[in-house]
Amino acid sequence: MDTVTSPGLIKFEDAGAADIEAAMQESAKAFIIYRRLSLKQRANFLRAIAVEIESLGDELLHIAAAETNLSLERLAGERTRTLFQLRSYADACEHGDHLDIRIDHSKTGKPDLRKMMFPLGPVLVFGAANFPFAYSTAGGDTACALAAGCPVIVKAHPAHSNTSELVARAIHRAVELFHLPQGLFIHLHGASNSVGQALVEHPVVTAVGFTGSFAGGTQLAQWAAQRKVPVPVFAEMSSINPVFILPAKLSLDSAETAEKIAASVVLGVGQFCTNPGLLVVIDNDDASKFILDLGQRINQTMPGVMLNPGIFKNYVEKRANALAQPEVEMSAVSADAPGLNQGAPTLAVTTAQVFMANPLLHSEVFGPYTLVVKCSDENEMLEVARSLEGQLTMTLIATEEEIIRHQVLAETLQFNCGRFILNGVPTGVEVCLSMQHGGPFPATTDSRFTSVGADGIKRFVRPITFQNWPDHLLPAELRNENAGGLWRTVNNKKTKDSL
Amino acid sequence: MDTVTSPGLIKFEDAGAADIEAAMQESAKAFIIYRRLSLKQRANFLRAIAVEIESLGDELLHIAAAETNLSLERLAGERTRTLFQLRSYADACEHGDHLDIRIDHSKTGKPDLRKMMFPLGPVLVFGAANFPFAYSTAGGDTACALAAGCPVIVKAHPAHSNTSELVARAIHRAVELFHLPQGLFIHLHGASNSVGQALVEHPVVTAVGFTGSFAGGTQLAQWAAQRKVPVPVFAEMSSINPVFILPAKLSLDSAETAEKIAASVVLGVGQFCTNPGLLVVIDNDDASKFILDLGQRINQTMPGVMLNPGIFKNYVEKRANALAQPEVEMSAVSADAPGLNQGAPTLAVTTAQVFMANPLLHSEVFGPYTLVVKCSDENEMLEVARSLEGQLTMTLIATEEEIIRHQVLAETLQFNCGRFILNGVPTGVEVCLSMQHGGPFPATTDSRFTSVGADGIKRFVRPITFQNWPDHLLPAELRNENAGGLWRTVNNKKTKDSL
Repeated sequence: MDTVTSPGLIKFEDAGAADIEAAMQESAKAFIIYRRLSLKQRANFLRAIAVEIESLGDELLHIAAAETNLSLERLAGERTRTLFQLRSYADACEHGDHLDIRIDHSKTGKPDLRKMMFPLGPVLVFGAANFPFAYSTAGGDTACALAAGCPVIVKAHPAHSNTSELVARAIHRAVELFHLPQGLFIHLHGASNSVGQALVEHPVVTAVGFTGSFAGGTQLAQWAAQRKVPVPVFAEMSSINPVFILPAKLSLDSAETAEKIAASVVLGVGQFCTNPGLLVVIDNDDASKFILDLGQRINQTMPGVMLNPGIFKNYVEKRANALAQPEVEMSAVSADAPGLNQGAPTLAVTTAQVFMANPLLHSEVFGPYTLVVKCSDENEMLEVARSLEGQLTMTLIATEEEIIRHQVLAETLQFNCGRFILNGVPTGVEVCLSMQHGGPFPATTDSRFTSVGADGIKRFVRPITFQNWPDHLLPAELRNENAGGLWRTVNNKKTKDSL
Repeated sequence: MDTVTSPGLIKFEDAGAADIEAAMQESAKAFIIYRRLSLKQRANFLRAIAVEIESLGDELLHIAAAETNLSLERLAGERTRTLFQLRSYADACEHGDHLDIRIDHSKTGKPDLRKMMFPLGPVLVFGAANFPFAYSTAGGDTACALAAGCPVIVKAHPAHSNTSELVARAIHRAVELFHLPQGLFIHLHGASNSVGQALVEHPVVTAVGFTGSFAGGTQLAQWAAQRKVPVPVFAEMSSINPVFILPAKLSLDSAETAEKIAASVVLGVGQFCTNPGLLVVIDNDDASKFILDLGQRINQTMPGVMLNPGIFKNYVEKRANALAQPEVEMSAVSADAPGLNQGAPTLAVTTAQVFMANPLLHSEVFGPYTLVVKCSDENEMLEVARSLEGQLTMTLIATEEEIIRHQVLAETLQFNCGRFILNGVPTGVEVCLSMQHGGPFPATTDSRFTSVGADGIKRFVRPITFQNWPDHLLPAELRNENAGGLWRTVNNKKTKDSL
């Protein structure tokens, strides 16, 4: 791959009130057309978007690299992930699993009732700073909404608006190719919060997808709740992804654990929502050795350029604030002095009592930073577990014997997260049906849904029941003949048979 | 059945802050025990509740009749429905459909990921005024929450607190029989709003179920959204269940339509959430004849005693207010003068222009009241459809030819309701999987879920993924051996096979 060229980046104007109103009217009109498409047509449209993004070639990577400081290699990987998302959600759309079809019929004296999921309506998606492809313009939220049958309005993330513009053009080409209305995909710019507010508050919007900060996500949720007609907000916000390390496992695998965790902490300059920001250990000789080992690895890791000056500034401030708390000790830092906008990998240490008494230490420091919490014993470790807020992930490092002995600890962690990892690290989020990327507040605003994997389509649909409609006037998926070969629950039995 | 005896009703004290705190701590403790139960154990517990309610015998009906003015016949029917709910949700719990199990395994270089639904935690349920059994103490919300694996805290409806107390005692006996913690089912009284607020705001509560007024439901949603950790509120609130009557069908079936609709309007003194409060017709001779016919039927229907003086007072005020609007005409009213707390069946008529210009006419008049809206033509009828708020149900009375010709009207109605009825009436809500009892705001606070049918269990669960856990330490439902014979999606294929 080439080195980053300077592609002449453009500064886009914020969308004005008239732009927004016109766009929303187009979106509402597009919904009426798009919701009539068959599952197959929708799936093929998603696949066409993938083809159009591919055909942008490496110009896309160069522009994204210039805007985000991410390496071409990382961006190529993220592009692959984005294309896989579009294609696997297209497959899921075609299988119709998200339709959750239920038919009750031919019971004497009872109505004929047939239920399935239908799209909510226009979905507003905010581009994410840390994933210019996979969680932005044609990212997971957009792919899920389109698979569900919803038009999408994207507000480009201002930190990579040229990248976003290029991807939007690819989507627009797919829209044209399928002779769909332009309002099906709207792309707007807005560096100012007022654009976001106007969009969330617009009556045409029926749901919102967001990946970003706690402050941003809760602000959107507040605007959405105060509307005349409130709408759901799926905000993935804030998680410190605690790793609980039990002593017998640590004494067995100390070096391996330190190696895996250090790599996870500094991966992508720590700019992942699943970054392990908290390590909880029992204070003993093994733990001291582990902290030293981890510190050496952190010390030997070079600082990395962060996504943008805003994120860098935020890291510096939050890290400084955490380290300035009483009885929080900086245990290790990258040996190399950080350059411009470079985040320095950092390891801090404190005690369980200090951690539990200071809410600031529970909040995310977005970047290559982690805090070790030393507990005096296993009871105190359980107290730490109980003091935690909701998380995207919890990780347990333990032997089988330890898991069985610490059932209460294990369940405390399990019931406060979306993904519960054993003897691994939280970074690395597979795109598959079994993935839960979500978790109790403040990890997300709605723990009942995932933003990764085809189950994310379920965020943008709702059930409608047809009562006593003649077969030929029903939506195709609810007719007696199961032409699409979909799984349906008929009179309480799952089947692919026609009636 | 006997006539109503006077069973010596008791006035219960509101729960105080200390009662609430103690109850919540018990509920949190009970969750830790109850969530470990197998699906079969939970199902059997629900069945035991049904048995205990049955063994209350007719004393339950007499007390309920004394508190609600509902007939013993209606109450016996509602008890049957309540027992059916408990037993059919028990069956659904055992089948594990709500678990939505997804397993991805043995892909080279990929983690082993297994996802299923787990209970949210303690669920707060508010008893409903109009269903003392089926949507109160051991009603749909309670049955769904218990099937999901959640402890329940019920706030008894003050208008039938003795009934609620009796049902609660039956549940407590089932709790004892199964040696479950008392905190699994908490029953509290509270005539004052402050009790409801304290309960919604308590950190132990993880979700709220409510059936009642728009003011009540939106107030609960607001309290829940303002918590430090917001929680979902499933409030079923307000719906006028519009019936759109197209001219060709009306000219064919005028008398039959008038008969069905009149019966639906006055059923149970109009005290159903699916009461048809709006009839939309094209103004022509057939329509005039239909309105006259409907009016005669309303005129011949005796007033009925309403649930309680509060609901009666509300009906009188809302009806008077609607009838006082400019250009709204009272077309017919029950010929008999209403007695104490009796609601008089009433038919009002207005024009599409008046209806669309006056939001007050869009709001529910809870009782045996309906408003006919006369449209000058089919375009105006479409405008009326577009002017409506979200509804539990929409009904279309039309010939097949009319449905096909009015696709836009049909879709406008469909996409603004939860249940779309053809040539029927909205009253009559079957308890089955294919039922959607829910709808866009203001019908409910969350259109994505139903409060009737076993899919209501899904309101109280959320997904958790297990990553790389050894088989014997996984929850039973996620293990390689599918001992329960559950449907699971394994590597994207639905199967009941073991791995």
